[in-house]
Amino acid sequence: MKKVEKISNGKNYIAATVGKWSELSQHVVTLAPGIEIPGKAFLGETTQSTGTEISFTITPVGKGGDFLHTHKTNEETYIVLQGNGQFQVDAKVFDIAEGSVIRITPDGKRAYRNTGNEPLIIICIQSQSHTLNDLGITDGVILEETVQW
Amino acid sequence: MKKVEKISNGKNYIAATVGKWSELSQHVVTLAPGIEIPGKAFLGETTQSTGTEISFTITPVGKGGDFLHTHKTNEETYIVLQGNGQFQVDAKVFDIAEGSVIRITPDGKRAYRNTGNEPLIIICIQSQSHTLNDLGITDGVILEETVQW
Repeated sequence: MKKVEKISNGKNYIAATVGKWSELSQHVVTLAPGIEIPGKAFLGETTQSTGTEISFTITPVGKGGDFLHTHKTNEETYIVLQGNGQFQVDAKVFDIAEGSVIRITPDGKRAYRNTGNEPLIIICIQSQSHTLNDLGITDGVILEETVQW
Repeated sequence: MKKVEKISNGKNYIAATVGKWSELSQHVVTLAPGIEIPGKAFLGETTQSTGTEISFTITPVGKGGDFLHTHKTNEETYIVLQGNGQFQVDAKVFDIAEGSVIRITPDGKRAYRNTGNEPLIIICIQSQSHTLNDLGITDGVILEETVQW
């Protein structure tokens, strides 16, 4: 079983690796004793993030989409890294592919499945709704200090 | 110039596409009149996210890392989709590759560059620090309602 492994850390950061995308199927998330989801990895426990929880999921050909779920307080954004599939939110079903992004409010009933001929790899980003101050680049501050290379 | 294009939407969601990862270089972010960053796309304006801002950046071979930056209130997580590079946070420099994830507090001084032989593709996720209620899967609610496929 593969783990999210720390590769570097300091006062202001933690860096880790989940390994190559093709190796995602070696990760397992334990929901409860004896209930395991293969092909899924959550980052937060390793990166100690405080504003977002990020997960990666690899779904084999012909699989996925067994149930709908909602969220209590978190908005989710799904990003398709590889593959083809279908996504359902509430009563709507639409096609997804490499480069698709789906932003869903907590109340949206969601599920997706792999309808393509290669593994479907998806990043899911959770963050609490209505907590972001600004969209875009306005939160960044460019420094005069030079880089080390 | 390529845009983030809406592909589907409903009461609880907006879905869009940035196109294939290899086409990211066709996106341009305009910082100010006449100041443009090629190879970068922000999602929020299209997805209308309220808890996170997500961007994609493709950095050509030998490029990147011209300046350090910090943030006012946002934590960032960088995810390496493709390629090899170096990442600096404060005084530390470390190698990054496919599957690397770097979570940085607003104060961390950060920059990265492409040191590999293919384009470096990175997702950057911003969210306000200390706004997440729970890490992991505890915010999700599984529904009895059946999926449409």
